[in-house]
Amino acid sequence: MKRVFLTLSYDGTAYAGWQRQKNALSVQQVLEEALTRLTCERISVTGASRTDAGVHALGQAAHFDTCCNIPPEKFSFALNTVLPGDIRILSGHEATFDFHARFDACAKTYHYVFHNAPHVNALSRLYHAHIPQPLNDNQMRDSARVLLGRHDFSAFRGSGGALGNTAREITEIDVIREAETVTVVVTGNAFLYHMVRIIAGTLAAIGQGKLPLSCLQEALCTGDRLVLGATAPAHGLCLMRVYYPNQTAPDTCGHRLRND
Amino acid sequence: MKRVFLTLSYDGTAYAGWQRQKNALSVQQVLEEALTRLTCERISVTGASRTDAGVHALGQAAHFDTCCNIPPEKFSFALNTVLPGDIRILSGHEATFDFHARFDACAKTYHYVFHNAPHVNALSRLYHAHIPQPLNDNQMRDSARVLLGRHDFSAFRGSGGALGNTAREITEIDVIREAETVTVVVTGNAFLYHMVRIIAGTLAAIGQGKLPLSCLQEALCTGDRLVLGATAPAHGLCLMRVYYPNQTAPDTCGHRLRND
Repeated sequence: MKRVFLTLSYDGTAYAGWQRQKNALSVQQVLEEALTRLTCERISVTGASRTDAGVHALGQAAHFDTCCNIPPEKFSFALNTVLPGDIRILSGHEATFDFHARFDACAKTYHYVFHNAPHVNALSRLYHAHIPQPLNDNQMRDSARVLLGRHDFSAFRGSGGALGNTAREITEIDVIREAETVTVVVTGNAFLYHMVRIIAGTLAAIGQGKLPLSCLQEALCTGDRLVLGATAPAHGLCLMRVYYPNQTAPDTCGHRLRND
Repeated sequence: MKRVFLTLSYDGTAYAGWQRQKNALSVQQVLEEALTRLTCERISVTGASRTDAGVHALGQAAHFDTCCNIPPEKFSFALNTVLPGDIRILSGHEATFDFHARFDACAKTYHYVFHNAPHVNALSRLYHAHIPQPLNDNQMRDSARVLLGRHDFSAFRGSGGALGNTAREITEIDVIREAETVTVVVTGNAFLYHMVRIIAGTLAAIGQGKLPLSCLQEALCTGDRLVLGATAPAHGLCLMRVYYPNQTAPDTCGHRLRND
């Protein structure tokens, strides 16, 4: 028996999110069925982030246990032969049994991308959210800074999310314009349900002058969801990377991986 | 009656290319049917470039004639309500009747994009061609320079292309790496059938050390297709922009447009 750590990318368009569900197809289910096909074992995969329906990933992380003799670093090649094209494994490593993809993750980076032009672009229509009104990215960047640090983000939680502690820490937030795309970059230790999409939707409203620059600060102080903007649509969001303690290089998980 | 000039983007994945065909769906056919739905006229659209099956466009140009009273600059909004999401009109303008989208085009820019990493990326799988072996983009850039200028490109013509004069002028060629993507940028006055894909496929072979840096020069001198690399797959190619004489700004067609 060994534990295998994977990094993977997926196009979330066709999936009801990462997590296995009864009546809809999830990335986890497709990955588990591919593993069963390869190994003839019944394998349960644990993902670092339970991305919502329609959300994409370029750097999701996951682990699973198996008794099969495929070398861990070959799982990417083996799985990519049986998975559909919209799920692609990027790397595989052996991990120790005390490693856990979800509970050991110490930070995640998400990108939320707006296509800011009069019309939708045919090539990015499934990956960027369209905002035809001009976005003032400088105002978005300036107002976003109040989110940096540790705060009670209870106002930034979508209904339907788990209850419990709503304190989270954001270590990086930026708004970057490149021609017609405006990207909101957010790194934090963990995120509440819909938190990144509420941040992105609020910044988009600020960038259009529909909400005051002060609304983020007000939401942090009052916990009032109603002073913020709408939850931005799922397809603009992409999980870029999951970080683990003592990580030394991208796509590796430092301290608990055997073969780095 | 008036002549309307459009710029448009499309995801070529689902189409048998730009040009109308008997037994397969083309971008031209879908656009003409959308125009008929809007105007109740039978409209024929002329594109600047007859892109191949599976090739994408972010800046195709086209013109058509109509008697309907939709203002030319509103055609983008009107058409985007009836077209499928993988064809998006970017702009519309009125043109004079001596303007011709294909014959007046004086240059076109194409991008050919390689995803250069061990595994395919789930989000770019339909838009970038995958090369797992490391590409030496410096060698690709250096060797590509011999193509600049006016040459007989007969070695760079795919079988099935029209016969005739094979002299073409390339005014810009570059190879740009950004992390795992390597983009071949080519601008020229016109291109032979499969010419950009043969250039891209040959540069990829040079970048992997499979062909000598001198093979492009040799092909120009000898006209021998066999010294070049394979035609790169269609889905890595994207028509970025079509240029017209006296053009002053992107997406406009200077001298013969009425309402600029």
